[in-house]
Amino acid sequence: MLNILFSAKPAAWAEYEGPLNAAFAKVGLAAHLSLDHAPEDVDYIIFAPNGPVTDFRPYTNTKAVMGLWAGVEAIVDNETLTQPLCRLVDDSLTNGMIEWVTGHTLRHHLGMDTHIFGQDGIWRDESFPPVAADRPVTILGIGALGAACGQALHALGFPVTGWSRSPKDIPNMRCLHGTDGLYEALTDAQIVILLLPQTQETVNILNAETLSLMASGGFVINPGRGPLIDDAALLAALESGQIAHATLDVFRQEPLPQDDPFWAHPQVTVTPHIASTTRPETAADVIVENISRGEAGAPFRFIVDRRRGY
Amino acid sequence: MLNILFSAKPAAWAEYEGPLNAAFAKVGLAAHLSLDHAPEDVDYIIFAPNGPVTDFRPYTNTKAVMGLWAGVEAIVDNETLTQPLCRLVDDSLTNGMIEWVTGHTLRHHLGMDTHIFGQDGIWRDESFPPVAADRPVTILGIGALGAACGQALHALGFPVTGWSRSPKDIPNMRCLHGTDGLYEALTDAQIVILLLPQTQETVNILNAETLSLMASGGFVINPGRGPLIDDAALLAALESGQIAHATLDVFRQEPLPQDDPFWAHPQVTVTPHIASTTRPETAADVIVENISRGEAGAPFRFIVDRRRGY
Repeated sequence: MLNILFSAKPAAWAEYEGPLNAAFAKVGLAAHLSLDHAPEDVDYIIFAPNGPVTDFRPYTNTKAVMGLWAGVEAIVDNETLTQPLCRLVDDSLTNGMIEWVTGHTLRHHLGMDTHIFGQDGIWRDESFPPVAADRPVTILGIGALGAACGQALHALGFPVTGWSRSPKDIPNMRCLHGTDGLYEALTDAQIVILLLPQTQETVNILNAETLSLMASGGFVINPGRGPLIDDAALLAALESGQIAHATLDVFRQEPLPQDDPFWAHPQVTVTPHIASTTRPETAADVIVENISRGEAGAPFRFIVDRRRGY
Repeated sequence: MLNILFSAKPAAWAEYEGPLNAAFAKVGLAAHLSLDHAPEDVDYIIFAPNGPVTDFRPYTNTKAVMGLWAGVEAIVDNETLTQPLCRLVDDSLTNGMIEWVTGHTLRHHLGMDTHIFGQDGIWRDESFPPVAADRPVTILGIGALGAACGQALHALGFPVTGWSRSPKDIPNMRCLHGTDGLYEALTDAQIVILLLPQTQETVNILNAETLSLMASGGFVINPGRGPLIDDAALLAALESGQIAHATLDVFRQEPLPQDDPFWAHPQVTVTPHIASTTRPETAADVIVENISRGEAGAPFRFIVDRRRGY
């Protein structure tokens, strides 16, 4: 019998208890899932940063911490955590992100807002957008989510450049890395999508200097993490016209305060951290499958490299 | 030397003369492209319905009429036309249509308008859209454009049903046909996309009865032809909530008159027949390649079946 501690915000228990127990039953693992186990008895912790566990030292027999979130910046620097930490990599989260990123990329590419706002009886049929093949898109961050979004955008005909800190080789996109690669990836990009993890190196990666490399009148789409953008630099680039529009799903402070200038800015669309969401049924399957692998002696999947921070 | 008559609206000549001559040179066909040939000397007519030629009887030696438009309803009933008629099937037109259809499908699926219009400082993160897999999409008309849009939507995870008058078998979609198939295709559909040709059988195909089959609160997207929809029935379905929103690119009268109720309707988005446009460079290549086939003794591609009307 495995003892599984669930440590997340209280509302999550109601969503996850059923799906997790169903997933354990499905793979035939005897598991006692609870909000309350003696720390030394816990085999696995299912964990979100907004739950009660903050000190991992008492969990001396815990084999791994299974994150409920894709992002781990709120836990990766916790020095009490010495157990393996796994991120959540869930297809339904990936699919939702593909939908949101593809939808907003096409929205900006097609100039949809002109029509959505311009229902004034004037037939404006003079200008057509370029074809997707003439609209270069750059994705900063080509992990599971960024790489998947890149495939979807490639399938629609966009030329896709992906950038990552270390070299990667992903089909259907030009892959660049490192500092020189970052400058090259942003140069003349018309749409930039941020899907990087939040680390010391990625904070403010989109700043006055890097924004200036993009094609004039470009678009910024951020479903990644708020601190990836220097907010003041983005507002200045919107003001100058260097950036035509920004669609932002994540912010330094969430919920975004009502008096934040992004809300009222006509060239900014705020969405409330909904680009993608973890769906308990599929997330439970992914987590239990990973525990099952560990119990069978196989290496865990999606282990976080604590040194890199993701 | 082939004599090629160009008959379209005057503005089209400036756009097409260069690309057509370049395309003839590329395939090595000697062609004299002109706005003015003696009718009996004409080998091919490159034709749009808004040009000067309306009586085809004098063109006794013309081997084929090459349409510049994908839709042929404005010419197919012209009884003076006895020469073969080819529609324009152009990849760039197909790609543009995929972009527009996929973009507006994702827009409605994701509920984007709520965010685009709702920049009021209120963080609404309670409700997420279903995943695409739970959002059935039906495409009425699965010719070149409809089939291609269906593939793109399938790739994003939408369950796609395609309907055509006669049986078809297209991968990645449930294919239905005939009258019974139409009712089945529309039943519980959440998003319906119209890409049918305009024929006697398809006029008003979306009417009070067929709209009532759709899932309550569904979406209608029409990049096909205006008369496919019974406008009064659509307005009534919007009023009752049966249809949540309609995005319409084509209309019975274009430009859509300024006093048309669609313009002012909060649940209707009008776009000015821009879902897809023929791009002269690629269209010229397609037309010249088809002429080149005919000159080599091969059958023409994209021949219109005058009896069916498309």
